Amino acid sequence: MDDIMIRNIVDKVIKNLSDQSEKEEYLPIEASARHVHLSKNEVEGLFGKGYRLTPKRELSQPGQFLSQERVAIIGPKGMFKNVAVLGPERKNTQVEISRTDAISLGVDAPVRESGNIKGSSSIFISANKNMIEIKEGAIVAKRHIHMPPKDAERFGLEDKQIVSVKVFSDRPVIFEDVLVRVNKDYRLNMHIDFDEANACNFKNGVKGQILTEKGK
Amino acid sequence: MDDIMIRNIVDKVIKNLSDQSEKEEYLPIEASARHVHLSKNEVEGLFGKGYRLTPKRELSQPGQFLSQERVAIIGPKGMFKNVAVLGPERKNTQVEISRTDAISLGVDAPVRESGNIKGSSSIFISANKNMIEIKEGAIVAKRHIHMPPKDAERFGLEDKQIVSVKVFSDRPVIFEDVLVRVNKDYRLNMHIDFDEANACNFKNGVKGQILTEKGK
Repeated sequence: MDDIMIRNIVDKVIKNLSDQSEKEEYLPIEASARHVHLSKNEVEGLFGKGYRLTPKRELSQPGQFLSQERVAIIGPKGMFKNVAVLGPERKNTQVEISRTDAISLGVDAPVRESGNIKGSSSIFISANKNMIEIKEGAIVAKRHIHMPPKDAERFGLEDKQIVSVKVFSDRPVIFEDVLVRVNKDYRLNMHIDFDEANACNFKNGVKGQILTEKGK
Repeated sequence: MDDIMIRNIVDKVIKNLSDQSEKEEYLPIEASARHVHLSKNEVEGLFGKGYRLTPKRELSQPGQFLSQERVAIIGPKGMFKNVAVLGPERKNTQVEISRTDAISLGVDAPVRESGNIKGSSSIFISANKNMIEIKEGAIVAKRHIHMPPKDAERFGLEDKQIVSVKVFSDRPVIFEDVLVRVNKDYRLNMHIDFDEANACNFKNGVKGQILTEKGK
């Protein structure tokens, strides 16, 4: 074989590989159970002056951890005990529940992007013998994708972009209106809540595929 | 205007109207809460010899009714009280729950088409002081569309066909793998369960649109 033939073959192999990588837009997915983020103020209100959350294990997003502490969340119609508290402490306390949870608790939690709690539902939180009310902060987390910049580049997406995601389960759905959040500290992962997880019969290991407007 | 001109105009108007009707593929949707269908045998086991269900109000599907009777359903991890019983009596007892319910109850109910209960989960049902076990019959109902033949013709669909349905809510999803059931006694309606309803923030009046393979 001469050089030109070899070069042609190499070109074809490279093209083939890059075509394939374009197709490999598979997303890991995680289902988030109900959980609570607490501010320092609320940590102290529930666990005592000077108290800090105790990490139990790391979560998929770097720096985030499941704490050893557990709380109850309470609404006019019900309560959930033994709810996970995620650390580290945040600026504002935020309670993330599903619509099903919201109905059980009797709170009207809106679907919101994490951090956007203005005017969201009030809720009560208790631990040990302490019980506090947060005036706002109970939300249903809007489904979203954590994405580091290198993946954003690969997918051709930007922070705050809205995409659809097809879930390859045995009860397949396409989630529209999925928020892309790009940050260098993120690990690639789509987060859905348990209503969404159950609606598509999600099991660990089930993957998604991003459908942009073009691909719809 | 001569006859031919008028005929051309009429043809255009008719074509326009039929184009529009093709676009008007909007589907009414209903969310089904957990409920129970009982066989005569089980009605008697729960409510006494010779007992028959008492209709309380008619449901969207002709001939089907919500009965005045209520039951509890019980699994190894939990129970739900005050569960609706739908009539009339069926050949086989069937308990329809969501995945969320199945997890709460601790039963492994498979996603199944109504009536296909072979090998599905066992569950206990109680009413008054009676409690019975059904060996199989607890399922998560596969999402489906009840469709009379005239609508099937309009949509170009057949009994047992699988379609996708886009839901026009403020948390929009496309449900894939939706079963079409055609029967002259049906009224056009898509049925989803509460996990699916909550995943798309369904409210009464939210409509769907059938996407066939062609339209995907």
